[in-house]
Amino acid sequence: MFTIIGVIKMSAKGFQARIEEASESHTSKIVLALDYVLNDREALFRRSLQMVETLAPHLCAVKINRHLVLPLGLHPHVERLVTVAHDLDLPAIMDCKINDIGDTNHEIARRYFEAGFDAVTANPFIGWEGGLEPVFKLAGESGKGVILLVYMSHRSAGEGYGQKVVDSRTGHERRQYLVFAERAVAWGADGVVVGATYPEKIREVNQVLKDRIPIFSPGIGVQGGALNRVAEAGASYFIIGRSILLSPDPLEAVKAFKEGLDRE
Amino acid sequence: MFTIIGVIKMSAKGFQARIEEASESHTSKIVLALDYVLNDREALFRRSLQMVETLAPHLCAVKINRHLVLPLGLHPHVERLVTVAHDLDLPAIMDCKINDIGDTNHEIARRYFEAGFDAVTANPFIGWEGGLEPVFKLAGESGKGVILLVYMSHRSAGEGYGQKVVDSRTGHERRQYLVFAERAVAWGADGVVVGATYPEKIREVNQVLKDRIPIFSPGIGVQGGALNRVAEAGASYFIIGRSILLSPDPLEAVKAFKEGLDRE
Repeated sequence: MFTIIGVIKMSAKGFQARIEEASESHTSKIVLALDYVLNDREALFRRSLQMVETLAPHLCAVKINRHLVLPLGLHPHVERLVTVAHDLDLPAIMDCKINDIGDTNHEIARRYFEAGFDAVTANPFIGWEGGLEPVFKLAGESGKGVILLVYMSHRSAGEGYGQKVVDSRTGHERRQYLVFAERAVAWGADGVVVGATYPEKIREVNQVLKDRIPIFSPGIGVQGGALNRVAEAGASYFIIGRSILLSPDPLEAVKAFKEGLDRE
Repeated sequence: MFTIIGVIKMSAKGFQARIEEASESHTSKIVLALDYVLNDREALFRRSLQMVETLAPHLCAVKINRHLVLPLGLHPHVERLVTVAHDLDLPAIMDCKINDIGDTNHEIARRYFEAGFDAVTANPFIGWEGGLEPVFKLAGESGKGVILLVYMSHRSAGEGYGQKVVDSRTGHERRQYLVFAERAVAWGADGVVVGATYPEKIREVNQVLKDRIPIFSPGIGVQGGALNRVAEAGASYFIIGRSILLSPDPLEAVKAFKEGLDRE
């Protein structure tokens, strides 16, 4: 009934080196978000696979989330997509937005890393001790990456990521996302997410990160983010999903985004 | 290769009515957290199933998280566990701690509701518009529940849930978890989570909720929470996992917890 699941395959290079390498060899900074919504699971798997194979030469990574994991299952289908991405020299990011207690966070990360994923996303709101520490530890031991959410792309992002918080040491008021950007530096994150819909936040976050940690920016196209403003503001990688997937010609769409970036 | 997945089965009664009914008929306020960690997936499924069947008469609900969903898959194995729980008159809660953008949150909730789950957990940090609104809408339309995280049980919970935030309208400083408790009331949540490791927070949150929304309290036993203090502080339901699952006699363990509560 079940197949045997393996241990985490160690990676000689870290996640940042792998995505940089893919970005250079494919001259692309586009991360494909495989966010299809289809009720026919057979078609969902087939189309996702086909999209990775068709677009790979124009991508630097593939990002998968629960749009695929829940209907398809991690084993064997999502694991298979990760293997195909690797065979096409693309790292795979699992956008699971980890935000549970430490033991569960560790288990979530372990399962995704064992399935071959090169990095996971996590919410720094959860804190370090008994929170994200076990995830960073596991990632560090196995050459995997952790990408922290710093400011998301949706309309009410300001209610949490944008709120003013009081620094417990200094008593000064600060914005939540700048506190998160500092945590990314202190914890040694391999990337941060800042929504393309808030380019001014990308600039501010970049000032905290000082180019030490790449910014991944989702929300371009369908969600309203403009590529040129986001690139200008300092994002390193551009997460694009529906604007490519739902285009009548996904290959042309991804090429157009690449050209748009080249003009920067 | 794939089986057909269904639509969301409408529930005549809401989630709160269903858990109250199960709690009365089983005279129990214990929610079993099925958080096994086992590499043998066949054994993981078998043991989880056996545990639900054995302990059902002493429970008011079953809570599942990614400890099971990732290795077993939602279809057909986790879905099967949910069906077995229902057959034994227990609602099933999916502890997925939703914290993504609205479209993805909707997709996550839809998939779990379609698999039969009666409620999902979500992080109010994400905000309403384009955040949790689609989840509450879907839950409301299909008689399902949404349980919001208000204060978690882990050591660094204070870094996020316990931080001081500035109220954007009044300019006053407030604790994050009290803001979250108010969101639970405003958004019509069916439950909130407050860690058993922080009984004083349960009391404070209860003052905001005014008994309109039940408090689910995890972290009893292995994590250090004491049942009597938590019950006294005003929690309605007690989420217990490892203290039962890893006990040499799980049935005796769950009975002992029940008796401990009866003495209150």
